[in-house]
Amino acid sequence: MKHKIGILGFGTVGQGIAEILTEKRATLKQRFGFEFEVTAIAGSRYGTAYNPNGLDLKTLLDDVHKGNQFSKDRVDWDNLKLIRESDTNIWCELTYTNLETGGAAIDHVKTAIKAGKHVVSSNKGPAALYYSELSLLAKKHNVMFLNEGTVVAGTPVLNLANGPLAGCEITKIQGILNGTTNFILTEMEKGVGFKDVLKIAQEKGYAEADPTGDVEGYDARAKVVILANIVLQSPVSINNVSCKGITEISLTDIDVAKKEGKRWKLIGSVEKTNTGITASVAPQKISIDDPLAGISGTKNALTFTTDLLGDVTIVGPGAGKIETGFAILNDLLRLHFEN
Amino acid sequence: MKHKIGILGFGTVGQGIAEILTEKRATLKQRFGFEFEVTAIAGSRYGTAYNPNGLDLKTLLDDVHKGNQFSKDRVDWDNLKLIRESDTNIWCELTYTNLETGGAAIDHVKTAIKAGKHVVSSNKGPAALYYSELSLLAKKHNVMFLNEGTVVAGTPVLNLANGPLAGCEITKIQGILNGTTNFILTEMEKGVGFKDVLKIAQEKGYAEADPTGDVEGYDARAKVVILANIVLQSPVSINNVSCKGITEISLTDIDVAKKEGKRWKLIGSVEKTNTGITASVAPQKISIDDPLAGISGTKNALTFTTDLLGDVTIVGPGAGKIETGFAILNDLLRLHFEN
Repeated sequence: MKHKIGILGFGTVGQGIAEILTEKRATLKQRFGFEFEVTAIAGSRYGTAYNPNGLDLKTLLDDVHKGNQFSKDRVDWDNLKLIRESDTNIWCELTYTNLETGGAAIDHVKTAIKAGKHVVSSNKGPAALYYSELSLLAKKHNVMFLNEGTVVAGTPVLNLANGPLAGCEITKIQGILNGTTNFILTEMEKGVGFKDVLKIAQEKGYAEADPTGDVEGYDARAKVVILANIVLQSPVSINNVSCKGITEISLTDIDVAKKEGKRWKLIGSVEKTNTGITASVAPQKISIDDPLAGISGTKNALTFTTDLLGDVTIVGPGAGKIETGFAILNDLLRLHFEN
Repeated sequence: MKHKIGILGFGTVGQGIAEILTEKRATLKQRFGFEFEVTAIAGSRYGTAYNPNGLDLKTLLDDVHKGNQFSKDRVDWDNLKLIRESDTNIWCELTYTNLETGGAAIDHVKTAIKAGKHVVSSNKGPAALYYSELSLLAKKHNVMFLNEGTVVAGTPVLNLANGPLAGCEITKIQGILNGTTNFILTEMEKGVGFKDVLKIAQEKGYAEADPTGDVEGYDARAKVVILANIVLQSPVSINNVSCKGITEISLTDIDVAKKEGKRWKLIGSVEKTNTGITASVAPQKISIDDPLAGISGTKNALTFTTDLLGDVTIVGPGAGKIETGFAILNDLLRLHFEN
């Protein structure tokens, strides 16, 4: 079966997956029998393009790289009409995350599912705010709602937990889930204060102009909620997660930890206990012997505590155009194999 | 479909998977629709048991825990007759590794495949010495030959590479593939010399009476060969892998590395280059910032270098009864999903 893919949002991740699909078309067919066309892209500032026989991705990427609007196959449909009426069987929801309300993404996901189309998302809004509802809706309509790209970019944490680790019972997950704060803590170990490092992080593009979402732990908190829901199958909401960021960590704190053979890390954690689920985001002093202590810079890492294997840790990139694009490819392949 | 499983070898790994299957029977059925009977066990010193309707695993495990021979369903068939003529569709080859000739395991695997039965193995002999031949034979007979248990116990390295990382091209693999030597190097950092640490490792059961296979790097070399063949699809043989163990590392070497911000680790490595494949096992000084540097004691870890994700590292147990038993379960589930 030839997949017909739609893409909502053509920012970093959207362009990333479009580039990967363009470059890997032959390999994907040869190795996995994965054949596809991207038939629809809603690119907001670039316009909307639709062609039931397949869009010319190279031309559209060229347009975008030049800062232009799409030059071919333009339509003036709104997103919901495009989702419903286009010839597509999979929608990739890659618009910007809104952790307050979920934004338009919620309607995008619901509309696609109700139209009987699978959804692959890197948008943390739907997964962090409405996972239970959306996954039930997907089940009802016999489609899949996959979210690998919402946590640790393309490092395959959700598909590892639900794939090769599926035979284990996972009881706890903890990890370094935000690259910006990990970069800041790593640089502070060199003796540079929080405010100065934040400036460097902003210059390098690791932190946004308003860094609140990262440094206060809100981004990590959303990921903890997603891990609780998808991996531990426990309906945790953002309000259930205690959350403390890294703004109060001083150079003195860092020094004291160093003398104790430890390192400060912003740790997101969720655990099944006898009385229910506990979930938190907070800076923690981690022993140098812990695999999480060695994770420096913008890298992310996650430790699953399991019944049969004890602790299994995975380390990989937590951001990046191609790295997050790969998460989308990963879910597309999962859809391909399981449908 | 109800799987009928045979087990060859009832040492640590065989007992491990038997215990897991006994405890997880209900969960496996409920979560994955995985139903099974273990119908045959060739337990060498415990005798051979066969019952086409399913053996009583609890009783047989009890026998073994008491140091007795199997007390039920005994038959006097030899292994090859058992493999061929028993009512089984999957054979688990869990006998002891022989890296010189492969030993009887080679015949076990070939006989099972030729009889149209899948093979799951934790025995490094067949995979390290005859992977190309055996995987071709399996293809011809339309069955699978799976080897998760041969590398890093149940930490799912092969199924991660061939599953959630399948969309990447993996160009290099390097890792800490032997727990015994990693334990020795970790302890030497505390100032204890090689010979004294080796004695401790032998007392703890981490090293064998003849420690050659571990300390000279031969065990890690076999794993490098298996990774090259299965993950990089490159027919590397043991003779293609340069191999140096840890016997020449002195406390002075360890101290010098420490002063350079580095740590000695025995690294197994295999890489695709423009001119072919290079593979080696050798002690290397690893920068403290590398995720592999933080892997202490008997833990194992492996870094995949990929085209789309850069480096992805997985860390987990490298030995243990239940931990290696889980590798067998992992492959059994893979067989279940893909057949």
